[in-house]
Amino acid sequence: MVAPIDFYFDFGSPYAYLASERIDQLAAGHGRAVTWRPILLGVVFKLTGMTPNMHQPLRGPYLLHDTQRCARLHGIPYAIPARMPLNGLAASRVYYWLADHDPDQAKALARAVFRAHWVEGKNPETAAEVGDLARATLGLDPAVVVEGARQPAAKDRLKVETDGAIARGVFGAPFFFIENEPFWGADRLDMIDHWLAGRF
Amino acid sequence: MVAPIDFYFDFGSPYAYLASERIDQLAAGHGRAVTWRPILLGVVFKLTGMTPNMHQPLRGPYLLHDTQRCARLHGIPYAIPARMPLNGLAASRVYYWLADHDPDQAKALARAVFRAHWVEGKNPETAAEVGDLARATLGLDPAVVVEGARQPAAKDRLKVETDGAIARGVFGAPFFFIENEPFWGADRLDMIDHWLAGRF
Repeated sequence: MVAPIDFYFDFGSPYAYLASERIDQLAAGHGRAVTWRPILLGVVFKLTGMTPNMHQPLRGPYLLHDTQRCARLHGIPYAIPARMPLNGLAASRVYYWLADHDPDQAKALARAVFRAHWVEGKNPETAAEVGDLARATLGLDPAVVVEGARQPAAKDRLKVETDGAIARGVFGAPFFFIENEPFWGADRLDMIDHWLAGRF
Repeated sequence: MVAPIDFYFDFGSPYAYLASERIDQLAAGHGRAVTWRPILLGVVFKLTGMTPNMHQPLRGPYLLHDTQRCARLHGIPYAIPARMPLNGLAASRVYYWLADHDPDQAKALARAVFRAHWVEGKNPETAAEVGDLARATLGLDPAVVVEGARQPAAKDRLKVETDGAIARGVFGAPFFFIENEPFWGADRLDMIDHWLAGRF
């Protein structure tokens, strides 16, 4: 049994959203599962002293144009939201709380958060808003979800995952590890495909 | 007659080197020529306040690893030079001087500069060193090459090209324009292929 691929992301990253729509199917084609690991890129940038690419002069506008082009090329629904970046704190905590009970439900919720923001232009940022999404998507009780996200275990887990990502060298999103081989960016999915096929 | 693709690069960029080994053949497959335009990324970074990706914490070491992997995947000879970054000032001036007389020779010299650095680990940085390379590669008289690079027209042209690149939104290398559509990065070559084929 081979180890799952690690997929680190921040809900506020458009390239992470684009990758999230492709990685599971790609991995499945090679008999691999994918473990989704939301993190807070803001924490990463603070530690490394880096600026998000999206906020940089010239690069920011280009990248927004490029995300639209990538979405079109791969047939992924996508619309640039009115308000960015999305703060993924609550959604990430809910994700880890849910992942402890049901990893498949957690992944379904993560997809719903991504699509709410990157397709419908919504900003599910409070625990209550994420709870409403969990009800709409999974039929969960929003009050239970809000309570779950408040648990110290969920808060700690997000910290541990973000720190762990930094320790592994994660500096942006999406970021993948196949065993210990690092791949940064949605534009590395083709290379991941070749890598999993053992072509190089 | 369709316009040539513009290929902006700095001789010191490994991804620009990797792209330089693929772009002409890719473009030719769609009946397109490529105009090579060396620029000085240092000037770009000074104006935009950006830091080269290669100098950033975590990202720098990852990118060097990634360049080796990209080279292997595409079968391109590549070795990380002992001393980086290469200062491409003299090579770029020689390039533009030569391009005024013979664009094909200029491109052949640019390839030789790229390979001297990114395959053989040399740093052809003075006009004399670039002149030696022009003799070895094209049989040119090094004294004539050195004199050519000293001409105000060659110096001005490099400035004009670098300023023109910034005006078009170039913030890194390699950077391509197909008409006015911008593509940043060696990892956009597949997208360029789809674009030229009119697939999206």
